[in-house]
Amino acid sequence: MTELPDVKQKILVKINEEKENIIDLLRNMVQIPSVVGDEKAVQEFMAKKFEEMGLTVDKWVPDYDELKTHPGFASPNTTFENRPNVVGVLKGTGGGRSLILNGHMDVVSPYDESLWEQAPWSAAIVGNRMYGRGSSDMKGGVAAMTMAVDCIKKAGVQLKGDVIIESVIEEEAGGVGTLACVVRGYKADAALITEPTVVEEGGVPMVCPAQGGSMWFKVHVQGKSAHAGLRYEGISAVEKAFKICNALWDLEKFRNAKLKHPLYQRYEIPLPLNIGILNSGVWPSSVPEEATIQCRIGVAPGESIESVRTQVKDYVQKFAELDSWLVDHPPKVEFFGGTWIPTELPLDHPFVKIVINSYSKVFNQEPELAGTPWGADGGLLVHHGDTPVVIFGPGDMRVIHFPNEYIELDKLIAATKVIALAILDWCGYIT
Amino acid sequence: MTELPDVKQKILVKINEEKENIIDLLRNMVQIPSVVGDEKAVQEFMAKKFEEMGLTVDKWVPDYDELKTHPGFASPNTTFENRPNVVGVLKGTGGGRSLILNGHMDVVSPYDESLWEQAPWSAAIVGNRMYGRGSSDMKGGVAAMTMAVDCIKKAGVQLKGDVIIESVIEEEAGGVGTLACVVRGYKADAALITEPTVVEEGGVPMVCPAQGGSMWFKVHVQGKSAHAGLRYEGISAVEKAFKICNALWDLEKFRNAKLKHPLYQRYEIPLPLNIGILNSGVWPSSVPEEATIQCRIGVAPGESIESVRTQVKDYVQKFAELDSWLVDHPPKVEFFGGTWIPTELPLDHPFVKIVINSYSKVFNQEPELAGTPWGADGGLLVHHGDTPVVIFGPGDMRVIHFPNEYIELDKLIAATKVIALAILDWCGYIT
Repeated sequence: MTELPDVKQKILVKINEEKENIIDLLRNMVQIPSVVGDEKAVQEFMAKKFEEMGLTVDKWVPDYDELKTHPGFASPNTTFENRPNVVGVLKGTGGGRSLILNGHMDVVSPYDESLWEQAPWSAAIVGNRMYGRGSSDMKGGVAAMTMAVDCIKKAGVQLKGDVIIESVIEEEAGGVGTLACVVRGYKADAALITEPTVVEEGGVPMVCPAQGGSMWFKVHVQGKSAHAGLRYEGISAVEKAFKICNALWDLEKFRNAKLKHPLYQRYEIPLPLNIGILNSGVWPSSVPEEATIQCRIGVAPGESIESVRTQVKDYVQKFAELDSWLVDHPPKVEFFGGTWIPTELPLDHPFVKIVINSYSKVFNQEPELAGTPWGADGGLLVHHGDTPVVIFGPGDMRVIHFPNEYIELDKLIAATKVIALAILDWCGYIT
Repeated sequence: MTELPDVKQKILVKINEEKENIIDLLRNMVQIPSVVGDEKAVQEFMAKKFEEMGLTVDKWVPDYDELKTHPGFASPNTTFENRPNVVGVLKGTGGGRSLILNGHMDVVSPYDESLWEQAPWSAAIVGNRMYGRGSSDMKGGVAAMTMAVDCIKKAGVQLKGDVIIESVIEEEAGGVGTLACVVRGYKADAALITEPTVVEEGGVPMVCPAQGGSMWFKVHVQGKSAHAGLRYEGISAVEKAFKICNALWDLEKFRNAKLKHPLYQRYEIPLPLNIGILNSGVWPSSVPEEATIQCRIGVAPGESIESVRTQVKDYVQKFAELDSWLVDHPPKVEFFGGTWIPTELPLDHPFVKIVINSYSKVFNQEPELAGTPWGADGGLLVHHGDTPVVIFGPGDMRVIHFPNEYIELDKLIAATKVIALAILDWCGYIT
């Protein structure tokens, strides 16, 4: 690190000094439950943090009526009452490039808490790990990006370009928080989203210039009821649902066999089609008459959402035409809820190069470059906010949405450093 | 019919005269919704009917504390408040055999009412059919047995043996209503349960000296959650559940291949194993961590409940031992809720012969003899009430638990006649 200019060196030293504060910030964030829909308390905490940092704070509740007709809108909700977005702006001195740091504060449910060895809101630290729902996805990322800015400020370094920290709601259900930031006018010359990019046990984060898109759909399957005693007089919707699930997994194989994207070769299944929910039947002694399958399908950078929708519908329809019952009772495919648009930056984009360079200085190795296998809010920033996006963050994507989600604290600190260096290089600073 | 003695001829004429009243009674019964748990209104209607007929009426609420330790007890409930049983007794003059006529007034839910062409509580008549939830299962049977007694009384015929009409609750969830009758002391020299025994479109009812048993069980399946984007890091509980469902259907084949019972040869699947409910997963973007399968398995006359329980558990366990994940995360089999004990009478039992004989006189043909493929309350009467049981009724078992359940009205009237003749022959009468 001896080759670093003094300012950068000073920031890295500052981050080392602030290590306990970084961990404390994350602990406080994790200890405030914020399952999607219930983000108010944690967002008020973030607004207070931004105020303490001396940022210009913008806190507002996304307006359903304003957003609902936006082409990027996707939400299961019709109001966002009590669910504020919070943006903190550090105004630059001028002449530099602006940067958005974006992260979501909503988390998925911990579900069955009995499966957690550490309580999901405990933020318990065991060795190098802090446990808790949202620790990796993605309060860890938000803590890192917030503290990167905090340390730059505390070190007295003045940036030329603006830094806009977006602490948003509802990423897990469609991205309305980030969309609301776009519609409110927040744009920048680049954006970093600090979603988790560690993919291997004990591994280092990747740098992701591409993000996969994804969307949700349901398949409604009709059977024919009958008393269990004469079950062969009925048509089991659950049996038909199994067949459709198999067809969907075949579609996954089909799509992945066709995918040649170089940033996705590292994944066993680059474009996963996940069957997340299956519900069928109402009574043990009746043949189930209906089944609903709820899925999430990955969309590759370069694919259009519409083309994938058509592909899913066509595939299910063609499969149904092979079944004597389904041909007359075709399953209905319904896209609903979240839609995350895929996006990618060329590898020689200046911001990609700066993130790679910052990473190399902190980790003393080149980062692995990959696309994320999941969708995030990047598509909204790129397609609707005209802001190029890189994804890089300290969390581990293998443990997110799981019981016993955790983050490795050394990655949290290292990511804070990478982000701080990238801010300095991208925004520029007064020497 | 010219060979019939005058008294029997008189009763058949009376039933013909009462045809509209029989249909009216059933219409009134169907128009009172009585989904299992909500039987109060229809039971009060029955009590009133029995009073008008001049029967001794016994109306009481089954007592959970009294019944819960009984070996025949199976119920998802811990109170039966507002859910009375009703028994009407017609005391004989003495010297005859006593007879229980048993039927349940609870019905399964109509579920999605939009699938009904006639509203489920309309009792709408279209041609020879009356539509409605419970019309076949089994208010039609209860109407027939009630009106058989009513017509005998109205015709002024005096029976020697007692007739006990049991209008019970909760057959659909385990038979606590009939159990409560047994515990209250109601026994007889024979019983007729008027559950539906038509099994073919436009067919005539069968006479069933045997009834299949059945019971419910759940299989709890454990997977391993993961974010959809890395779904291959998880283990899909729904995928494992499919495998277990296939194993359960194999178990069904295994059991049926071994079954040689002559009264069950007519069924495509004499001992059905129905997968009635499958629920798995909580979020489209997570690999489902748990699945629950709810099933109903048929038990053959001659099989013990305990041996079938052991067979199911062993089969699932052996299957799990073949799967690299399930071997370490074995599915849990849990028997719950309803248990219907199988039972059968020898074909030369006097009551079987009387029902066959009565049937032949009304239908001018020998009845088909079969075992029912479903469980009913007969097992409780036989095993705990020491009362031999035959099942015969006017409903169509193909349409029960379906939308658009109906009963054929000519079968309703014919069944009333069969029951009336059987009462006369079994109980004896003053000539």
